[in-house]
Amino acid sequence: MAAQPKALPQNAVIGILGGGQLGRMLALAAARLGFRCHIYCPEAGGPAAQVADRETNAPYEDLDAIHTFAKACDIVTYEFENVPAMAAKTAGNASILHPNGRALDVAQDRITEKTFIRDQARVPVAPFQPVDSVFDARRAARHMGMPCVLKTRRFGYDGKGQAIIRSEADIDAAADLLDQPCILEGFVDFTREVSVIAARGANGQSAAYPLIENVHENHILATSTAPALRDTGAAQTLALKIMEALDYIGVMGTEFFELPDGSLIVNEIAPRVHNSGHWTQDAGCVDQFELHIRAIAGWPLGDTTPRFKMQMHNLIGDDVNNLGTILAETNASLHLYGKSEARPGRKMGHVNRKLPH
Amino acid sequence: MAAQPKALPQNAVIGILGGGQLGRMLALAAARLGFRCHIYCPEAGGPAAQVADRETNAPYEDLDAIHTFAKACDIVTYEFENVPAMAAKTAGNASILHPNGRALDVAQDRITEKTFIRDQARVPVAPFQPVDSVFDARRAARHMGMPCVLKTRRFGYDGKGQAIIRSEADIDAAADLLDQPCILEGFVDFTREVSVIAARGANGQSAAYPLIENVHENHILATSTAPALRDTGAAQTLALKIMEALDYIGVMGTEFFELPDGSLIVNEIAPRVHNSGHWTQDAGCVDQFELHIRAIAGWPLGDTTPRFKMQMHNLIGDDVNNLGTILAETNASLHLYGKSEARPGRKMGHVNRKLPH
Repeated sequence: MAAQPKALPQNAVIGILGGGQLGRMLALAAARLGFRCHIYCPEAGGPAAQVADRETNAPYEDLDAIHTFAKACDIVTYEFENVPAMAAKTAGNASILHPNGRALDVAQDRITEKTFIRDQARVPVAPFQPVDSVFDARRAARHMGMPCVLKTRRFGYDGKGQAIIRSEADIDAAADLLDQPCILEGFVDFTREVSVIAARGANGQSAAYPLIENVHENHILATSTAPALRDTGAAQTLALKIMEALDYIGVMGTEFFELPDGSLIVNEIAPRVHNSGHWTQDAGCVDQFELHIRAIAGWPLGDTTPRFKMQMHNLIGDDVNNLGTILAETNASLHLYGKSEARPGRKMGHVNRKLPH
Repeated sequence: MAAQPKALPQNAVIGILGGGQLGRMLALAAARLGFRCHIYCPEAGGPAAQVADRETNAPYEDLDAIHTFAKACDIVTYEFENVPAMAAKTAGNASILHPNGRALDVAQDRITEKTFIRDQARVPVAPFQPVDSVFDARRAARHMGMPCVLKTRRFGYDGKGQAIIRSEADIDAAADLLDQPCILEGFVDFTREVSVIAARGANGQSAAYPLIENVHENHILATSTAPALRDTGAAQTLALKIMEALDYIGVMGTEFFELPDGSLIVNEIAPRVHNSGHWTQDAGCVDQFELHIRAIAGWPLGDTTPRFKMQMHNLIGDDVNNLGTILAETNASLHLYGKSEARPGRKMGHVNRKLPH
């Protein structure tokens, strides 16, 4: 494994595993700092590749292609957490990989994730239990108490691969989830969902934005508002504790449930820039994408204090067909991802709005 | 010539003639709005191409290549004013061209420019006179009075192709300028240099930022500060008057000299985004690059009211080797252009700083 240089030189090539909107916005931020980006993803001409200097199109399982790609980059990062472990390992052997493969391992499997957060980072999570069959799940649900939540251990996102269990009949109805290894989690009766976007730099610095309050609709993030009310700094401390335990370099998103007594338990971590941090692009400080690039490059992290109260609103599916009002709005900034087809549930862009103080 | 559609559809392809930093920042802004960019420039892999979906490398004189390029774009714009007239005309026949070829014609020749501004737009300029020989120049200088300024009519920038004439001996010393057609301009004893960045949209809207005060060092722009003190709105009115006379669509930069009595005379126009408008990127409103894209796309122009007092500082040549302090600075945003070699006098990037109110 190559050693981390003190700081990435100007004009260096940053490789990004993954070609979606997060890769696109990382590439745009990297370009502002003069870096060149090389995107690795299976399909050609996606959101990230449209704005990058170079792209390689091959499956994540093609380790030769991953090796050649990583060799052509001064540093490699990723924009989604389902990069196969072997691909990340291959990239890490051929170049510098930030965040490290450990962060991917932990984030890819809900059991590994929750075990790590509870036992290694010593940060609270909901009660959980691995379950591998309907029989298992029934027994665990009786033991844990209902309602509880059944989720696949891997590859769940935007509410896909999960079901709320209010009775044993719900387990039978969700039996097809149990074709793969699952987790049963205690149902958390939260007062609100909040998240933290924080970074640890290759230069030893760390930084976090103010607390973010999130609202989901149909299991998809609808809005993020920041700075959230009642920000005690506790969530940032917990997020950085997890990141330290992972020896993490880069930006990480940490989602929390806030309980009626104000205490926090971690819902999940995302070892990458995060949808709930998009508002930072128009907050008058270094945004989460540039923060990630600065962090992995070993450059100073800069200023993460927003100058405005912000609200991000995701544009999902058809939302993107009504932009006239948004474009004419004072205080609104539009961000589109270059996706040609507006399928239902697909994130097509977002709007950041400056809110009155 | 294709008719201007009501508004450019999402995901459309914007062609940019020219591949430097202005093209780069236009492409980054276009990407935010979901457009794809296609760069046309002679050299491969330049600042703009690094962040664009596609590039064509061919000389500006290759009209077949220009035609093919323009046909592949939904709309074409340019990032520098020395695009040959025939290239612009060819692009305008094959696609929609904004700003129009007339703006290029006027901006490319100092005699045409000053004549147009004085006689068509009826906006004040310094006294001027075409001169084509040392003999001509001596006679004109005696008539106009010295000091005056000798400039080549075409292709001058950053102080190249000009000389101050304080005595007839200075004309002999600058005789090689007179190998090409020249202009002799009255010397303007200005109190400050100011500029206006304004836009006219294909949708009929117009917009302008507050007045900008500029300081040049060695004939190269060093800093731009905005909003400038004593902004009466007069400069914006004059700039828009010129743009109207040109039937101009897009962002234009207009440089003025301010005289001791506060009156303004136009120094020159740039039919493109302009170095003195780079501060808009971090001012908390639509920046000049996005404004240009919105204008040519026929999209609403949006909000051009800065939320901060800003200062832009150009990073020239070696300046780019000392970035550590800037990166760590609160209130500073760094923008680098992806140029590999830091030659003296070469614009490598810029810093935008939020100033205390």
